[in-house]
Amino acid sequence: MADRQVLILEAAVRVIARNGVRGLRVEELAAEAGVSTALIYYHFKDRAGLIRRTLGFISDRATGYTDEAIEDAEDAREELLELLLGELQDIERVRENSIAWGELRASAIFDADLRGPLADSTRSWTEDAAEMIRDAQKAGLADLHVEPLDAAERLTALVEGLSERWLSGSLGLERARGLLAGAVDAELGRRPA
Amino acid sequence: MADRQVLILEAAVRVIARNGVRGLRVEELAAEAGVSTALIYYHFKDRAGLIRRTLGFISDRATGYTDEAIEDAEDAREELLELLLGELQDIERVRENSIAWGELRASAIFDADLRGPLADSTRSWTEDAAEMIRDAQKAGLADLHVEPLDAAERLTALVEGLSERWLSGSLGLERARGLLAGAVDAELGRRPA
Repeated sequence: MADRQVLILEAAVRVIARNGVRGLRVEELAAEAGVSTALIYYHFKDRAGLIRRTLGFISDRATGYTDEAIEDAEDAREELLELLLGELQDIERVRENSIAWGELRASAIFDADLRGPLADSTRSWTEDAAEMIRDAQKAGLADLHVEPLDAAERLTALVEGLSERWLSGSLGLERARGLLAGAVDAELGRRPA
Repeated sequence: MADRQVLILEAAVRVIARNGVRGLRVEELAAEAGVSTALIYYHFKDRAGLIRRTLGFISDRATGYTDEAIEDAEDAREELLELLLGELQDIERVRENSIAWGELRASAIFDADLRGPLADSTRSWTEDAAEMIRDAQKAGLADLHVEPLDAAERLTALVEGLSERWLSGSLGLERARGLLAGAVDAELGRRPA
């Protein structure tokens, strides 16, 4: 992707995280990114195209920082935990990404165009988690009666629920992380000693 | 509460569920409710006061339909399940309430005034669920090592996550309900035969 496209998409995430999706105006984005509105229309066609590409960009960025988070994991079960905990970190990039993701989720209720791309991103995240659960099962680190895709879908949905509670001030970050770790134990069974 | 206040609050939930919180204009609400804007300001002081009262109204209404849902439950564990499943029903009132709740949750990220009331409503819902888990434990219907408040907080956060996925088109309703029932089993341990 061209540098200026990345610049515009980074600025779009910042603007959405600050004002919400519905507060996103192309003029403001142009000012934030330091480019012309014409360049934005040239690369993204229209506001809908821009928002769809921003959603993809947010997913890719999340994959980036969760990949970092799982780098030091010692086995598949720890990888799963770190993948999920990666979304609950008090780091500007994560916070910004999570706010924008929650905004896009909430907007998709009113905006049918967003639903397809959002469902695709959700599925891909859930499938990554399911794959780690399968690996944990093969390694004897998760109960074999667990249905990987069901557990993965619950865990990623829980991350979204906890993340929104954290960001909206209903839940402290450390408590949210502790609850999430407890959910992995509840889903996969306690880790063998 | 006076009839006309209820009328205004019902209209506010409808407008939020249709256009989002940020789309809520007092003029539009007045038209929707069939009252004057002056009457709205008289009862709710300002837009912030109106939104806070709407949040309380949504919680009370949710208590109403979840109370109906648990009426036929045969024990505390079934009550818990029905309390949670009560939020995942394809009924206009539930859908409207859930969209508005998700909107208020997302808005609280940008609007500090909403955070206190939202945290209070969240806590009260979670405590109701925790109480049912304690009752289920006393009746031998839930593992005793389960921490009621932790499990309750995870389950209600999961309901929010699943509900947003359902409403935003990432998850079918029946699948969401099945996943939620599975989460209760994962949290409390399988029901004794």
